[in-house]
Amino acid sequence: MMTATHDSATPDERSRLAPSQHPEEAITSSAPYCLASREGHPEKTIVTVGGVRIGGGVPVVIAGPCSVETEDSIIEAALAARAAGAQLLRGGVFKPRTSPYSFQGLGLAGLPLLARARAESGLPVVTEVMESAMVEPVAEVADMLQIGSRNMQNFPLLRAAGRANRPILLKRGFAATIEEWLLAAEYILSEGNSQIIFCERGVRSFDPMTRNLLDLTCVPLLATLTHLPVMVDPSHGVGRGDLVPAMGVAAIAAGADGLIVEMHPHPDQSLSDADQAITPQALASMIARIERVSAALR
Amino acid sequence: MMTATHDSATPDERSRLAPSQHPEEAITSSAPYCLASREGHPEKTIVTVGGVRIGGGVPVVIAGPCSVETEDSIIEAALAARAAGAQLLRGGVFKPRTSPYSFQGLGLAGLPLLARARAESGLPVVTEVMESAMVEPVAEVADMLQIGSRNMQNFPLLRAAGRANRPILLKRGFAATIEEWLLAAEYILSEGNSQIIFCERGVRSFDPMTRNLLDLTCVPLLATLTHLPVMVDPSHGVGRGDLVPAMGVAAIAAGADGLIVEMHPHPDQSLSDADQAITPQALASMIARIERVSAALR
Amino acid sequence: MMTATHDSATPDERSRLAPSQHPEEAITSSAPYCLASREGHPEKTIVTVGGVRIGGGVPVVIAGPCSVETEDSIIEAALAARAAGAQLLRGGVFKPRTSPYSFQGLGLAGLPLLARARAESGLPVVTEVMESAMVEPVAEVADMLQIGSRNMQNFPLLRAAGRANRPILLKRGFAATIEEWLLAAEYILSEGNSQIIFCERGVRSFDPMTRNLLDLTCVPLLATLTHLPVMVDPSHGVGRGDLVPAMGVAAIAAGADGLIVEMHPHPDQSLSDADQAITPQALASMIARIERVSAALR
Amino acid sequence: MMTATHDSATPDERSRLAPSQHPEEAITSSAPYCLASREGHPEKTIVTVGGVRIGGGVPVVIAGPCSVETEDSIIEAALAARAAGAQLLRGGVFKPRTSPYSFQGLGLAGLPLLARARAESGLPVVTEVMESAMVEPVAEVADMLQIGSRNMQNFPLLRAAGRANRPILLKRGFAATIEEWLLAAEYILSEGNSQIIFCERGVRSFDPMTRNLLDLTCVPLLATLTHLPVMVDPSHGVGRGDLVPAMGVAAIAAGADGLIVEMHPHPDQSLSDADQAITPQALASMIARIERVSAALR
Repeated sequence: MMTATHDSATPDERSRLAPSQHPEEAITSSAPYCLASREGHPEKTIVTVGGVRIGGGVPVVIAGPCSVETEDSIIEAALAARAAGAQLLRGGVFKPRTSPYSFQGLGLAGLPLLARARAESGLPVVTEVMESAMVEPVAEVADMLQIGSRNMQNFPLLRAAGRANRPILLKRGFAATIEEWLLAAEYILSEGNSQIIFCERGVRSFDPMTRNLLDLTCVPLLATLTHLPVMVDPSHGVGRGDLVPAMGVAAIAAGADGLIVEMHPHPDQSLSDADQAITPQALASMIARIERVSAALR
Repeated sequence: MMTATHDSATPDERSRLAPSQHPEEAITSSAPYCLASREGHPEKTIVTVGGVRIGGGVPVVIAGPCSVETEDSIIEAALAARAAGAQLLRGGVFKPRTSPYSFQGLGLAGLPLLARARAESGLPVVTEVMESAMVEPVAEVADMLQIGSRNMQNFPLLRAAGRANRPILLKRGFAATIEEWLLAAEYILSEGNSQIIFCERGVRSFDPMTRNLLDLTCVPLLATLTHLPVMVDPSHGVGRGDLVPAMGVAAIAAGADGLIVEMHPHPDQSLSDADQAITPQALASMIARIERVSAALR
Repeated sequence: MMTATHDSATPDERSRLAPSQHPEEAITSSAPYCLASREGHPEKTIVTVGGVRIGGGVPVVIAGPCSVETEDSIIEAALAARAAGAQLLRGGVFKPRTSPYSFQGLGLAGLPLLARARAESGLPVVTEVMESAMVEPVAEVADMLQIGSRNMQNFPLLRAAGRANRPILLKRGFAATIEEWLLAAEYILSEGNSQIIFCERGVRSFDPMTRNLLDLTCVPLLATLTHLPVMVDPSHGVGRGDLVPAMGVAAIAAGADGLIVEMHPHPDQSLSDADQAITPQALASMIARIERVSAALR
Repeated sequence: MMTATHDSATPDERSRLAPSQHPEEAITSSAPYCLASREGHPEKTIVTVGGVRIGGGVPVVIAGPCSVETEDSIIEAALAARAAGAQLLRGGVFKPRTSPYSFQGLGLAGLPLLARARAESGLPVVTEVMESAMVEPVAEVADMLQIGSRNMQNFPLLRAAGRANRPILLKRGFAATIEEWLLAAEYILSEGNSQIIFCERGVRSFDPMTRNLLDLTCVPLLATLTHLPVMVDPSHGVGRGDLVPAMGVAAIAAGADGLIVEMHPHPDQSLSDADQAITPQALASMIARIERVSAALR
């Protein structure tokens, strides 16, 4: 049985579990994800993002557009998110797109726009990083870094995230098992960063009626396996704005620590993922219901 | 566009949409499931089972053991289910088992035991039918007939269920699309029985940590597509008793009209599916939480 | 460890492994599919259908239309199948259709047409049964009974097939594991019929480009697990006629004992599954390639 | 309709289809993968790796151990691969491992060992790159770069591969649709590198008996969609050495341009993926059968 120490309060501290590059040094463990495991760490970890506590029993909503498009639009979205009751702002500047010919995001040029939206709204910001070289520059601006589904097993990126001084929102790969997901977190943890939030966003399945198959069972399941918080992304999970609020409420009822939701003041003008964005009004209504459900279950 | 009339109050009435056995008579329709569709039937159907209304806004819980084993045990289970707050009793007499060498249920001999448990507890009973020849004898005792996942596309059975004077709990096939499920209901509806409740129970997926992948998104999705009620079976959906209550609560939050749950007074003595059964205490606790969530969302 | 005897030459003989309806009598076994298993039966079973041997090293092709439509068309198809090199004729009279409003097959009225086509062509015939009550009447005419994917776990039907005096073509359920499939065969075997051929026809998956995902790996895998022959249905497996011949050849190269292929003299006139039917010319060309590959591997 | 020119003989040439970082510049196309598409490029592309032609009608086998472990062992493996009839050597120096505590490969230190094995055996070498920063140093040694399943949608890596002066073996993501795979190739093509070989390696599915579900149908399907060659990796596709040869032969029968196979002189001593490696003897036997099947189909 492997032993390892980590301290959720000091994400900077480097683990001594350096990856082995020599066969004979490979570490084996009876618990394959010993740092993420709840076994040696029974109390739940609370991750704090720009002052907002995630994992402490009160659900947190991250909302915003799929991608940062213009300064005006991201500020408008941030103010709308805050007015609707969201506590963090999402907005992509690097957009992983299936086709090289689709809009790829503004890149680094989008970061000042995010910072501006934060200044105007007071909401901490979350944005995606797609390669290790971008972790540092993005971490200078963003309050939390997101690792997207396609990169859940991008191990160099996970290691870089493990050396960042920012919390990480780790999305589930779209055909990843729970164990693979925990081990992806273990890559980050083993580099010294224990400020990790799991984010379920649906797995690939056979029914064309929804974009993905949202796996809410992973929420109570992860609670038995890990001390880290779990959020849910119903927007990618179902891919249809009309079903997002019901699934957001269900996620909270299943025990999720919060949601990340695509919200756009004018969904039909969104440059990407227009079908799954909800309006600020729908967001406000969903947050009201989440609060009632959360209170009913406390 | 096809037109068809049906009346949810008269399950006995035969539809004039008889199945065609001559190519030239095959009926085509722009809405492939015209009788199940919400389009021509905007108001929600309420299905009444032994006096219990399902689909009327108050969640209903069906609970009981996987299979009827002895008279004493099914009566004990029925009383425990009622005490915990359940409104209907489940218990299988015909058990579809993967192996021919597993316990197959008591068969017709189990029906009087179910009737006795109903008499003792006052709870209407739900049990599975596996072939068309069994529909009539089972319908003489049971208050609702269940068609299991493996039989969702057993078309002769669906037709026989369509001619039965009992409500039908139609479970989703474990790799069935929503459209296939709606069309399976259409087989029943087109024979004249419109007392149908859909029951989600998880689809097959790749992660060995849970028995199936519970698809709660189908709950709000079906609400947009059909006027028929939708229940959820978290027991088969996740296959682990410790995760059942959280997913039951989540299902109600997603809008389900009720749950069907495996409950056993002594789960470790169950002859089948012991891992997924919950105790009467866990059931009572889950029902209390369901009621709070349901009230919070009304 | 369970012991059971069976003799592949006497499908009529009833097994003494009657299904238990009493909990205490349930039989357990260390090999869950002891009659199908290769362990106690190392030599391969050869199934003979109307004089055609399947499993003996020479691949056999079953071809014909999805459904029997008219006497003229089924005779034309049978003669075309024979001319192309097929050794058995397929043609459905009971058609399991997703929608109750689709053409459901001619039913019993189709059997004399099949018999006529056999008389004209000399090809033994294979057709599907969908419920236990139909096993006997269909077995009076058909040389082999097919149990379709949707009915792979229709246990009353499997038992009835186990009492039939005809070989059974047992298709894989579209989300069935290999073990579940072997256990479905065990239902037939335990009733005394050991003339069973497994038929892979694709499993459900996520890519909309093909109808199903053809699992050819099951061919060599089953060869390690069971003594029974294995055929492949590339037509349902891929759902596109242009890809059928390549996958038919690949199936034989993987070790399959034969193929069942949808062939229609005029695919665009087919009342069902027109996209996946191939022409007699394409069938002849595929059979020629199969023979060359089979010879190269002997 | 988008137009783009590319020339399969000049992988270095940069496409003028630079990715857009400004919304209004996003390029749209009626054919989503216009450079990979067979439509405007009917003749098949032949990719030449260290003098070995892939896609020209004669199947090519890449063989070798999962990972480069020591100089002696990789040289032994290379000589054994050549003796068995393989034409290229595989061997990983960067190993994407699910757990951070598993052996991660020798890293850059493994490259001189690969070069040494090439010098001793005369076989060109193929090895994986996991991040864009490693593309250049690895391309200095390797004859072909492999992009693994987990990185199929690592877009910065794909772009870097598009700027490399080496052919790319692009493995399919384990839940990637064919269209997503073609678009991943499009990322490489749009940077100017058209020396791409697709490599099917199984998709994730529900049956625990095999590691993945090998999708051989993608072989003839891709042949209709793209001009680029297609290889198959039966080792990861099935995960069991005993099934690899049959599936390798089936892949060639389905039309694959070659195979990549894990072969280890002493499979039980392999540091990773020991179960799926085959011996040099099994490799030689499989190659002999492949040649006979390939000749039979020409």
